[in-house]
Amino acid sequence: MSFRFTLASTDGAARRGRFETPHGVVETPAFMPVGTQGSVKAALHRDVEAAGAQIILGNTYHLFLRPGDELIARLGGLHRFIGWSRPILTDSGGFQVFSLADRRVIREEGAEFQSHLDGTRHMLTPERAVDIQARLGSDIAMVLDECLAYPATEEDAAASMRRSARWAVRCRRRLEALRAGEVADVTVSNPGQAQFGIVQGGVFQPLRDDSAGLTVEAGFEGYAIGGLSVGEPADVMYAVVDATVRQLPAAQPRYLMGAGTPQDLVECVARGIDMFDCVMPTRNARNGQLFTSQGRVNIRNARYAEDERPLDPGCRCHTCRHHSRAYLRHLFMAGELSAFALNTLHNLTFYLDTMERIRHAIAFRTFDTFRQEFLGSVSRLPPDS
Amino acid sequence: MSFRFTLASTDGAARRGRFETPHGVVETPAFMPVGTQGSVKAALHRDVEAAGAQIILGNTYHLFLRPGDELIARLGGLHRFIGWSRPILTDSGGFQVFSLADRRVIREEGAEFQSHLDGTRHMLTPERAVDIQARLGSDIAMVLDECLAYPATEEDAAASMRRSARWAVRCRRRLEALRAGEVADVTVSNPGQAQFGIVQGGVFQPLRDDSAGLTVEAGFEGYAIGGLSVGEPADVMYAVVDATVRQLPAAQPRYLMGAGTPQDLVECVARGIDMFDCVMPTRNARNGQLFTSQGRVNIRNARYAEDERPLDPGCRCHTCRHHSRAYLRHLFMAGELSAFALNTLHNLTFYLDTMERIRHAIAFRTFDTFRQEFLGSVSRLPPDS
Repeated sequence: MSFRFTLASTDGAARRGRFETPHGVVETPAFMPVGTQGSVKAALHRDVEAAGAQIILGNTYHLFLRPGDELIARLGGLHRFIGWSRPILTDSGGFQVFSLADRRVIREEGAEFQSHLDGTRHMLTPERAVDIQARLGSDIAMVLDECLAYPATEEDAAASMRRSARWAVRCRRRLEALRAGEVADVTVSNPGQAQFGIVQGGVFQPLRDDSAGLTVEAGFEGYAIGGLSVGEPADVMYAVVDATVRQLPAAQPRYLMGAGTPQDLVECVARGIDMFDCVMPTRNARNGQLFTSQGRVNIRNARYAEDERPLDPGCRCHTCRHHSRAYLRHLFMAGELSAFALNTLHNLTFYLDTMERIRHAIAFRTFDTFRQEFLGSVSRLPPDS
Repeated sequence: MSFRFTLASTDGAARRGRFETPHGVVETPAFMPVGTQGSVKAALHRDVEAAGAQIILGNTYHLFLRPGDELIARLGGLHRFIGWSRPILTDSGGFQVFSLADRRVIREEGAEFQSHLDGTRHMLTPERAVDIQARLGSDIAMVLDECLAYPATEEDAAASMRRSARWAVRCRRRLEALRAGEVADVTVSNPGQAQFGIVQGGVFQPLRDDSAGLTVEAGFEGYAIGGLSVGEPADVMYAVVDATVRQLPAAQPRYLMGAGTPQDLVECVARGIDMFDCVMPTRNARNGQLFTSQGRVNIRNARYAEDERPLDPGCRCHTCRHHSRAYLRHLFMAGELSAFALNTLHNLTFYLDTMERIRHAIAFRTFDTFRQEFLGSVSRLPPDS
């Protein structure tokens, strides 16, 4: 196995570590920028790296539909196709398929859906999700799970969790068959690909506990907590994370899917999470919502029209080193494409610098102090409110 | 005066030189990427510089309307506002105003127009065009001229040319008044700003000759040829350039406004032009039309779906060094913002490398050989036709 997780130190429940993949090392706790279609939106790979990203996430649903996993396999896998040489994690495609609402039907076999691009019908089974990701050749593949809408009844959450657990077993079996060379028609682009299981169960802790047990029993290189950051209150999410992490093996990485705000990252690291992904830094950047050490800035606000200060004087990013708030506001109001690029560079740097500061704090066992100070400054009322 | 043009060598009518401005030196023949609203579309300044740009163009019309020349003056001028420390040339705003068709009225006093943004009414006089550019603080300002539509009758072209000549005199007087400190309410952001006159006269050479005489008589630091590259056949443009250049002083730079294709650059350098600007490399990039040493590429074309080659194997740009045609096509088809950025980087590099090759060829007196080879390769039928 090419995947190896090493725990370096802990500070309370917070963990400092690293994992090795066929495409290099990732320091944890880690944040993964989202590169849905093989590109982190509005950022060149070079800038994503410069911002401090050690791993990015690709979306299997999008890449499967366009340009297609078979094309990507013929071109040597996702890393080579997109020209990104560091680690990549791919999701299973499930989240996007379940988001299609009336254009998908879920059965025990899998999910049948219609492409949002052209209406063509496709079937996503656990086995197919594994095969597609094998062709993409990501360093970490995710199992196909059922993503429940929030809120859900305990009965629905239980049924869904148990189906996800059955699918997880099918995913693991399929990967083992691929690894054993027993599947003829699937090109395995990255033989060292790891696979993570996903704990479901909504906000019902007994279901989460059962799910953790079943998922760990199936046996994966790492474990994700799915079905959170979907609209539930932050304290509910934190409570589920806190209790669920305790059911997961300490020797393997723990990935909280789809979270979150800067506060969420700090609060969930405090509860033992090692990995995060979220569209928030990139999507908010394109909407003019910028993260700073002093709270959020809405760059559209007229108060910035003649503000010569950098967005965040403490920030090392290209945007803050070269441009004023006045210019950033002008670019955004004028609809210039460079507004998206400069804002994205900044928000990504803010997220990735936060992770770097978290890692240092854990290593020096000052995480609790860091956490209090960080929440005090970042959570203050935004100047634009 | 801070502006100084030095002619280094010639090869036939082609000229190799440089001009000095308050923000540095520009090697000629030079191409100026267009940064309409204070940003070269889809490119960060850093990348524009890396592509080889020594000077960019800003559009007075757009900057006057948003964020406003007075705001820019309060923030220290255009260079400081946008964070670009090298030379900038600004046009007069005339071309955009004349393009507004039914939303503008031209009188001897100036042009009254309605903003395309909010319909507000404004008056652009020769004096105001000078004042606005003084506040912007570009290194080279252009006089306000009347831009005739093509085709025009000789009578219309003559009347328009004579009005432009009268406006040129008013522009020069206004700049001299500003330089002498005789205008109280205009902040001069760049005291070393040069001013170029513009030769008009359509495709009628006697009018061009008259215009050149009148414009040179008014006396400017450099001379532009306006009113070309507006729809006339290329050989007509070349003929007008050829004959008009002969009426201009050899000791000052000659700027062909708004041109053109790569072929146009080479053909007009061959006729004695020193400076160019055009939206073609950046606009075409955003439409997926890419320039290469082997002809034009339409990156949408399905033939590139699995093409692992760089766009142009001979190109040094970031895009060609890191990405395949297959990935560029995918990004473009998927509507990713990075498609615009990567395509723009390439096209700008192609244009600016062409200028670099032109300058070398003139210096080594091999320009004619270069010209034949360049036209032979670039003008060949595009592979996508």
